[in-house]
Amino acid sequence: MSSESLALKGGWVVTQNPKREILKADVLIENGLISQIGKVGKADEVIDAKGCAVIPGLINAHTHISMTLMRGIADDVNLEGFLNKTFKVDAQRTAEDIRAGAELGAIEMLRSGCTSFVDMYYGQDIIAGAVKDSGIRGFLGWVVLDEKFTTQKGSPLTNCERFISEHSGKDRIHPLVALQGVYVCSEETLMKAKELAIAKDTLLHIHLSETRKEVYDHQASTGNRPGDWLYGIGFLCDRVLAAHCAWLTMGEIRRMAERGVSAAHCPVSNMKLASGFEAPVPEMQSAGISVGLGTDGCSSQNRLDMWGEMKTCALLHKVQRLDATVMTAQRVFDMATVEGANALKMGDRLGSIEPGKIADLAVIDLKHPAMVPTYPQNIVSNLVYSCQSDCVRHTVVGGKMAMKDSRILTMDEKKVAEDAQKISEKFFL
Amino acid sequence: MSSESLALKGGWVVTQNPKREILKADVLIENGLISQIGKVGKADEVIDAKGCAVIPGLINAHTHISMTLMRGIADDVNLEGFLNKTFKVDAQRTAEDIRAGAELGAIEMLRSGCTSFVDMYYGQDIIAGAVKDSGIRGFLGWVVLDEKFTTQKGSPLTNCERFISEHSGKDRIHPLVALQGVYVCSEETLMKAKELAIAKDTLLHIHLSETRKEVYDHQASTGNRPGDWLYGIGFLCDRVLAAHCAWLTMGEIRRMAERGVSAAHCPVSNMKLASGFEAPVPEMQSAGISVGLGTDGCSSQNRLDMWGEMKTCALLHKVQRLDATVMTAQRVFDMATVEGANALKMGDRLGSIEPGKIADLAVIDLKHPAMVPTYPQNIVSNLVYSCQSDCVRHTVVGGKMAMKDSRILTMDEKKVAEDAQKISEKFFL
Repeated sequence: MSSESLALKGGWVVTQNPKREILKADVLIENGLISQIGKVGKADEVIDAKGCAVIPGLINAHTHISMTLMRGIADDVNLEGFLNKTFKVDAQRTAEDIRAGAELGAIEMLRSGCTSFVDMYYGQDIIAGAVKDSGIRGFLGWVVLDEKFTTQKGSPLTNCERFISEHSGKDRIHPLVALQGVYVCSEETLMKAKELAIAKDTLLHIHLSETRKEVYDHQASTGNRPGDWLYGIGFLCDRVLAAHCAWLTMGEIRRMAERGVSAAHCPVSNMKLASGFEAPVPEMQSAGISVGLGTDGCSSQNRLDMWGEMKTCALLHKVQRLDATVMTAQRVFDMATVEGANALKMGDRLGSIEPGKIADLAVIDLKHPAMVPTYPQNIVSNLVYSCQSDCVRHTVVGGKMAMKDSRILTMDEKKVAEDAQKISEKFFL
Repeated sequence: MSSESLALKGGWVVTQNPKREILKADVLIENGLISQIGKVGKADEVIDAKGCAVIPGLINAHTHISMTLMRGIADDVNLEGFLNKTFKVDAQRTAEDIRAGAELGAIEMLRSGCTSFVDMYYGQDIIAGAVKDSGIRGFLGWVVLDEKFTTQKGSPLTNCERFISEHSGKDRIHPLVALQGVYVCSEETLMKAKELAIAKDTLLHIHLSETRKEVYDHQASTGNRPGDWLYGIGFLCDRVLAAHCAWLTMGEIRRMAERGVSAAHCPVSNMKLASGFEAPVPEMQSAGISVGLGTDGCSSQNRLDMWGEMKTCALLHKVQRLDATVMTAQRVFDMATVEGANALKMGDRLGSIEPGKIADLAVIDLKHPAMVPTYPQNIVSNLVYSCQSDCVRHTVVGGKMAMKDSRILTMDEKKVAEDAQKISEKFFL
């Protein structure tokens, strides 16, 4: 938390409040929280936001940040080839690699106006260090799976528990329990993980029905599809944030909604790996499921870019249904902000610009050639269909400027990039 | 043509030559042409390209540049609503509007490393002014349609002829004959346009089978699908560059290939308008048709962004076929460079970095956080799946720097954006 006050003056505030108001107003931030929207007086630091949009910081609801170092190592291959290559590289990674990937990914996200990310990986204590130093907000899930499948030292569940105990409530770090998926997690592992999440009061993040193979294999071995099976064993609850959800039946959607499950949709990764045809997002939303947007890891996306994710999300659903009216700019922008916050059970703290909420914000240059013309009538359209990282001017997390005038303030960007380049050479030999 | 010499030193040259070589080399440019690739000595201007990729300038094979001013005015509506809104705005446009849209679009493309674009619009003499001043290369097609359908003053065919006569061979302007489509062009209009293209030795650009409605309506009125009908009347020839081609049969593809027709694929526009499910690009390419990539106009894309177009092209075809191995990064990069040049019948002048070709190039910062790590093994992957305009450092057209260190040298970017914002206010009232 910052003790100083910060004012963003004269911009168009895309509040994402319940009325989705777009206001010409100043925003005052005090002690890390949004304290006022309207005409604001003095502040310790004043940012001129004229000609800019002030938006809630984007929320990346599913990624593997340390895999940023594995960008471009396994493209245009089938899923089996992809997994073989990435698992092979993953198994030989050092603490230094994990840290370097996390720093690089944090910089890329901050540059894009993304202020929060949900991560699934091992070595989260190392990633936590990069979160702390970079100034981003991390929902960090230590991955749990059956011991016979893991390369982790010690028991994944014990590692996860230790990580949560050590990092709860510190430095913008929100630790949580993550599960690799039903293909490497027994009923016992899943239910113990759920107990841990309840005991520690955390989210329970899991890969769910990403590929047809996962669904078919699980059906063959248990007689049930993964969503139905997780419902049957009593795993599903309102702590669950399920990533991908590409191959769900309407029945599974109803049962997930009944238990208050949330979802993270990853359209670019699903398309690039050709693993998911079209996750039934409109159906999930109609059933009352909060659906956030995730980039997935850089080995499949290949950029931690919520702008591309938003645009592609709209394009994918429109073309699959041959209906240009589905998945509107406003709905997609919601998924990256308020709906994403709801999916993380943080709807009361994040996702919109309202007094009392945490001051996670981004300032977008509406005078950038690619954003012209912008009027209140098309501002959300332009954010979803035209904006890219090159239009993001400032990024604020918890009231602190992490990027100002397109310069990262928290880290030596050049050095991070150089180190990451050097360290990753071994993956290309 | 520039009489000075320019050397780009120490970069990774992604040549796109027939062997697709990636060379650590200098590039020497003299008199607007690439004269040497290798170890280069003195030059009038030297650019340090260490840590950068030097790539052929991207070719946007189909757009309506002046519609850049209409960004975000008709999103998330069905095609009828889209056309009603855009035609209404289009009909009231002034010369000032057309110029402002063209300047804004040229800046956006140069910022992205795009050096050539194929345009279809009226008022091309005004657009030619923006091309001349901005330093970009324009393949400018004055749109021809039946007189009863046009809002142009005078006969579209006469206007087109006059435009071609006045602008041939000047200031990076390549004039051509454009046709709106079979829905507003009679057989007589089409064949007269073809005669004009032959007489003036130009391309013949046409919208073809963009929507199912176009195909069904044409079939109802003539008994033939548009591609078959154009073949039957003798219109198809190797001057034809057909945009969209979203709803073709295998028979139409064979007949187009037989006549040497080229295509411009516009995946983002087709997806956003939900007008084209998946243009049969792999089938066209297998039949020997050169397929370029086009952004289409900003009213549908909504950004003149060839990076987004390349990535989306790969994603669309992979997901539609549930096959991650189709439409590889290399093939998509080809479409934006050499294959695009072939589609424009400029394969001997543009599209690759080879001695004797026109010096249209872009320099990409491989140390940008979103491009790390890059090694020769993944450089093309990173260009297609990670690169965006924010990674483009320099853009060279005809041997002249149009953008240097991410600053447009040819125009006052800020003023262009401000004027465009002001002028377009009327579209939002």
